[in-house]
Amino acid sequence: MNAETPKPTKSEGLKASESESPSSKLVQFSADEPLELDSGAKLGPWQIAYETYGTLNTDKSNTVLVCHALTGDQYVASTNPVTGKPGWWSLMVGPGKPIDTNHYFVICANVLGGCLGTTGPATVNPATGNAYGLDLPVVTIRDMVRAQARLVDHLGIDTLFAVIGGSMGGMQALQWAASYPERVFASIPIAAAARHTSQNIAFHEVGRQAIMADPNWRSGNYIQEDVRPTKGLAVARMAAHVTYMSDESLHQKFGRNLQDRDNLTFGFDADFQIESYLRHQGMTFVDRFDANSYLYVTRAMDYFDLTEEFNGSLANAFKGTDTRFCIMSFTSDWLFPTSESRSVVKALNAAAANVSFVEIDSDRGHDSFLLNVPEMFETISGFLTGAARARGIPAPGEKT
Amino acid sequence: MNAETPKPTKSEGLKASESESPSSKLVQFSADEPLELDSGAKLGPWQIAYETYGTLNTDKSNTVLVCHALTGDQYVASTNPVTGKPGWWSLMVGPGKPIDTNHYFVICANVLGGCLGTTGPATVNPATGNAYGLDLPVVTIRDMVRAQARLVDHLGIDTLFAVIGGSMGGMQALQWAASYPERVFASIPIAAAARHTSQNIAFHEVGRQAIMADPNWRSGNYIQEDVRPTKGLAVARMAAHVTYMSDESLHQKFGRNLQDRDNLTFGFDADFQIESYLRHQGMTFVDRFDANSYLYVTRAMDYFDLTEEFNGSLANAFKGTDTRFCIMSFTSDWLFPTSESRSVVKALNAAAANVSFVEIDSDRGHDSFLLNVPEMFETISGFLTGAARARGIPAPGEKT
Repeated sequence: MNAETPKPTKSEGLKASESESPSSKLVQFSADEPLELDSGAKLGPWQIAYETYGTLNTDKSNTVLVCHALTGDQYVASTNPVTGKPGWWSLMVGPGKPIDTNHYFVICANVLGGCLGTTGPATVNPATGNAYGLDLPVVTIRDMVRAQARLVDHLGIDTLFAVIGGSMGGMQALQWAASYPERVFASIPIAAAARHTSQNIAFHEVGRQAIMADPNWRSGNYIQEDVRPTKGLAVARMAAHVTYMSDESLHQKFGRNLQDRDNLTFGFDADFQIESYLRHQGMTFVDRFDANSYLYVTRAMDYFDLTEEFNGSLANAFKGTDTRFCIMSFTSDWLFPTSESRSVVKALNAAAANVSFVEIDSDRGHDSFLLNVPEMFETISGFLTGAARARGIPAPGEKT
Repeated sequence: MNAETPKPTKSEGLKASESESPSSKLVQFSADEPLELDSGAKLGPWQIAYETYGTLNTDKSNTVLVCHALTGDQYVASTNPVTGKPGWWSLMVGPGKPIDTNHYFVICANVLGGCLGTTGPATVNPATGNAYGLDLPVVTIRDMVRAQARLVDHLGIDTLFAVIGGSMGGMQALQWAASYPERVFASIPIAAAARHTSQNIAFHEVGRQAIMADPNWRSGNYIQEDVRPTKGLAVARMAAHVTYMSDESLHQKFGRNLQDRDNLTFGFDADFQIESYLRHQGMTFVDRFDANSYLYVTRAMDYFDLTEEFNGSLANAFKGTDTRFCIMSFTSDWLFPTSESRSVVKALNAAAANVSFVEIDSDRGHDSFLLNVPEMFETISGFLTGAARARGIPAPGEKT
């Protein structure tokens, strides 16, 4: 609590090893194979860290690319080496799960700008020998998808059976369908949108300002100076976390319950459970995430606007597409509300695309896509099975 | 932007003079006339700063007490001495306005724990000669109302014709009716609630953590050490400000419009108007508000729960009341949603109270109560006129 003497916090923050030499699979591209970014910059050398689950079939037609959200990673269905926790979508991906790894070959890559192995601001800049910090060019959702396409090329896969993701992962699922329509058989954007709204940008800006207000941020050079802006990053996480839950779920989970006490203490300790919970969320987050990555990845989301990319018409983004879409939203998600998903559905209908849309009844807010929501699992499982039949690959329940 | 060397920021922050010797009217109570607080502490000496408008009638029956919100002050309808701006509710209070100062005598006091003249954490602690900081006992909404009751006593006024306020001001209007039913003829809580929800507490906790994460906060002793936690306070304000607006109003006002530029800059400057707007809100706020006051006043709101005070039954809070209530909410207010107002109405009905309830159609979010919303003005004006007739005092349009 006492913030009087900000000392270097060497032991705090994400371990550098996972951002340079991740525990997962890794592809490195040389300076001769740069990634061309929306900003005009060419990034190289660069690398992309990823995990795979299941087996690629002989005609390479059963790949499901899972795209992760803002603070996610490639460890979708295996133990996270930093936290030691199960993969973030273990309920969704695995043998017998909705994305059944007995049938599908699953790829999940850490996003460009991330901090678990793919090139990001914590990566060493070969020009200086220090971490990039803010010298890394700003990246976009389209850049993230470009990097994934290079990985898929590298793996010798032409067409993805499906691209799926929630929140920022859903933005990538939409961007994939718009950028590479011939390479995406099915797209499943969940709790997503075709643009970041003014309110979305506002909440992100609060988080970025919290990070940059931390004196240990050092204009982004904290790695070099061997400190970490953990307090600012924790506040950013706390602010964001409130937006991931619904008023209803907060009420049910915490209400006005007190934390380990019978009475109000008339002080500024965490009297209420919700305060204690938020502080815990902030404190644990800083051990698994890089502050500059938080700046870069939130910026990529803010910049996302498919309508603008396609000259003011979202329908143009999907003109003539053969991709089949399954769009999903949640009733209590106020951060990426159903109205945003409906705009996407409308545009897809205008483009005469094959689209199904489900608004799922859930009181858990934006985070619903990460939780045990049976209707979501059933919808995805059913949609994938139908798509597999159409694609001519064995679906779960059929002979492989 | 460069936060590398946090220097003492002497010139920043609220001027001490307004918190000690305000430009407004002031009543000082000696150590022999302490204020007994919910925490059990006795506060004395203490003072309360206030403004008045209009004239008290001979039988002292025409007083309207206006209660301000979290960051408001006593300058409801006169120039704020710190900002030089018109009073925060000039649209509501004044000659010919809904709260017509040609007919009503209006009092507005800075809340206990505030920073514009009423005793708060920036006030000098007579025991030490330094600002109280966190040595000031934590105060509650009921304590704020107790302080106002002492002021009203001092002015020789027995009964208030009306108590009115928005947001935290509405909490006080409810508390007045619950604590002193015989002294409140009419109560008008706008965009308020009988308790702070888990989500409300969560957003406040984010703001408090942002302040306490600022190394210049110095465990609350920043005045003594002649620095100010302006960066943390600015982040707190930014986070709160997003919650005061609706998604719709942010979309209409800013959308994804860029700030003074034609293209994205691929950097972390304020590319979007909403970012620039938020930064401005944060930066200007720190010149008119004290960081510790922000901790105290948000805490008071978090602690507010009339149901708990009355043994689990909100109806008990208003049992046998003769006060007439006008409850108001706004359709797009997601911070203090209509459902919270409905709970109050339900309890008032259960207590057989005289209550009218209006949900006003507005797309401006929680801030609606501060804005030009004609239906709100008409409702208040009409309700007050009816109440004035019932009270036997001349109403606007009638001979005084």
